[in-house]
Amino acid sequence: MAEIVVLWHKSPDTDAICSAIVWTNYLKSMGADAKAIRLWNPNFETKFVLEKAGVELPELVEELPEGQKIVLTDHNEAGQSISNRNNYKIIGVVDHHKVSDFETTEAVAMRVEPVGCACTVMYAMFQEKGFTPDAVTARLMISAIISDTLYFRSPTTTGIDRKAVEELNKIAQIEDLEAYSMEMFNAKSDLGDISIRDLITMDYKTFEAGDKTFGIGSVETTNPDFALSKKEEIITELNNLKNEQNLDFIMLSIVDILNEKNTTIVANENDAQVIKEVFWAETHEWLADLGNRVSRKKQLAAPLSEYYIG
Amino acid sequence: MAEIVVLWHKSPDTDAICSAIVWTNYLKSMGADAKAIRLWNPNFETKFVLEKAGVELPELVEELPEGQKIVLTDHNEAGQSISNRNNYKIIGVVDHHKVSDFETTEAVAMRVEPVGCACTVMYAMFQEKGFTPDAVTARLMISAIISDTLYFRSPTTTGIDRKAVEELNKIAQIEDLEAYSMEMFNAKSDLGDISIRDLITMDYKTFEAGDKTFGIGSVETTNPDFALSKKEEIITELNNLKNEQNLDFIMLSIVDILNEKNTTIVANENDAQVIKEVFWAETHEWLADLGNRVSRKKQLAAPLSEYYIG
Repeated sequence: MAEIVVLWHKSPDTDAICSAIVWTNYLKSMGADAKAIRLWNPNFETKFVLEKAGVELPELVEELPEGQKIVLTDHNEAGQSISNRNNYKIIGVVDHHKVSDFETTEAVAMRVEPVGCACTVMYAMFQEKGFTPDAVTARLMISAIISDTLYFRSPTTTGIDRKAVEELNKIAQIEDLEAYSMEMFNAKSDLGDISIRDLITMDYKTFEAGDKTFGIGSVETTNPDFALSKKEEIITELNNLKNEQNLDFIMLSIVDILNEKNTTIVANENDAQVIKEVFWAETHEWLADLGNRVSRKKQLAAPLSEYYIG
Repeated sequence: MAEIVVLWHKSPDTDAICSAIVWTNYLKSMGADAKAIRLWNPNFETKFVLEKAGVELPELVEELPEGQKIVLTDHNEAGQSISNRNNYKIIGVVDHHKVSDFETTEAVAMRVEPVGCACTVMYAMFQEKGFTPDAVTARLMISAIISDTLYFRSPTTTGIDRKAVEELNKIAQIEDLEAYSMEMFNAKSDLGDISIRDLITMDYKTFEAGDKTFGIGSVETTNPDFALSKKEEIITELNNLKNEQNLDFIMLSIVDILNEKNTTIVANENDAQVIKEVFWAETHEWLADLGNRVSRKKQLAAPLSEYYIG
């Protein structure tokens, strides 16, 4: 195994996987012996992005040697990370999420910025060091930013994200970014013969807040009707997952990317009540209209955390 | 109150106070309405540094308006921070310590680097933005780095700290850095008519590890005999503090700066046992010879955290 292993969170999205590959390239360009690994399978959008970029999917590794130096990208919370993380030595973090359930015994290099994408933070760090990413690395960063910000539709988008894409595309030279983003979103919406469990956990995270734990899945799609047509099976599976993971709350948001609309599937009466108190939204036939809340981080996890922390 | 309040940790050392003033200058130079405040009184070294630099001590403030935006310098742990921190909105952290007992509900700008001083991290950030600190700001940064690294004697010192001082002194133009560092250390050693409680808490931090809490005080001095001559009174007061703060362990290290030697005052049998298990050091007449362990962060808090986390 390489000296430093770069890894992303479970249920990875395009930013997770691209940021780990990008950061591995950064560390290598600084002379480090680094390797990106994969904890889980990518979604169809990420597969499309990697194929277009001509980049191989990192190796699937579930366990590392005791004491392995690791760098976390696009996450910091233990529950979202590699299992038994305490067995390894975290030496770095590059992230754009809230900090929670994260503890080290020594100082590490940690960089978190409130921007739309971990790759936006990385682009700033490339610039600070005077490094220019190569065309493939730039393409991966652009793809991650497009994915995380839903091509600048999400309220998590900052001017820094837009500027990063603009500047990176001078290197990557993607001809029509709008068209490329549509191809990415269509790839993501091709759910084909996916199992209900995979549909829920494909882009799923658990969060700690106070002494509570909750899970939020998100299906970002140009074709929300597909997932909504499976509502009954999804509800059964959400309740199974909630029990397995011993959660206080679970939800699956079906996000219509193009119309910026969130229809959330609610698993049970208890969770409907939480949704009412946190989002002021009524649940009808196990569906809650959460309006334009398309950002899990800012519009779903943050108010839920505040609700549970009190 | 300013829009952004920059604050340091309780029981502040020179880095704590200087880093808050430096960061306030940085934020102001970016156009922000920022103000450094003080949670506690400075030690004699810091007083000397501020007087030499012609900088006024920030205002003492113990409570802020609900929802006040705050930036933390030189610390992140809740126990070391302003009381009732959850009432405020953390928007930034610049630190060089382990991350622990730190949680946000949204992403914040967080920058931690494993270097010898928070001001070293700040110097990197000035450089990244292409900002040049003014002579007073540069002097404060140099003073903080000298203080935290014991003028490069501490094992926490990195090449980055040395380089920062070298480059900053082109701006600050302190004629004889060695002599200046001796003046600082002598000022710190002038304990005069300090109370025993103040002697212990002057440079004191509590740490969380697993479900345990422990406190480590440090008296960095060129004249260790003064503090050691007060051993009996110190032991009584250490036990009082341990009870008040409901701690699992407490220690006060008397650090002879010039000879890089740590003689630790042990409060009771239980703590002597912990010191034996963690540092392989026997306690005789309530003193443990901890050799050249002069860095609280790296050589005291880190092994204790590992011991308690298991």
